[in-house]
Amino acid sequence: AGGSMCSAGDIKAGRTKALMCQACHGLDGLSKTPDAPNIAGQTEPYLVTQLQAFKSGTRKNDAMSVVAPSLSDADIEDLAAYFSAIEITVGKLPQ
Amino acid sequence: AGGSMCSAGDIKAGRTKALMCQACHGLDGLSKTPDAPNIAGQTEPYLVTQLQAFKSGTRKNDAMSVVAPSLSDADIEDLAAYFSAIEITVGKLPQ
Repeated sequence: AGGSMCSAGDIKAGRTKALMCQACHGLDGLSKTPDAPNIAGQTEPYLVTQLQAFKSGTRKNDAMSVVAPSLSDADIEDLAAYFSAIEITVGKLPQ
Repeated sequence: AGGSMCSAGDIKAGRTKALMCQACHGLDGLSKTPDAPNIAGQTEPYLVTQLQAFKSGTRKNDAMSVVAPSLSDADIEDLAAYFSAIEITVGKLPQ
């Protein structure tokens, strides 16, 4: 679930770019700091929309509002392609 | 990864409350509509922060800005407890 192979961005370029994200999000997309969300296997359109929102300022966060403006549209597509391509599986649902 | 058993909210109550979220997010926390993110195994503090942001209006989204104001603080804690308790595992990272 989650990954989509026919993504707009370049997964390999996204993986390289993701090195700048790993301190908070991990290269595996699992949160490494309390405030950062897991983004492994997140849906590609959602990742693009949120990165564009942080870039434009319609969504604000201390860290992301600093990082996102430096990203080009291609960077955003590549990062979304990479993190959405990480396969996640869900275990038994909590009862 | 992701789930935390010692959560502030009540997982069982959260599962019941999650019935109102399942159309977009699924009871399994995997996105059911293009705009909705996966929230399975998302970190609990992040879920609480985002639901509070949609409730207060500091973060806006067509659907969530309608839903979140109806949630009590307890509802938010319970929903965050439920969705963060869903275990997710990450597969091989895309190369």
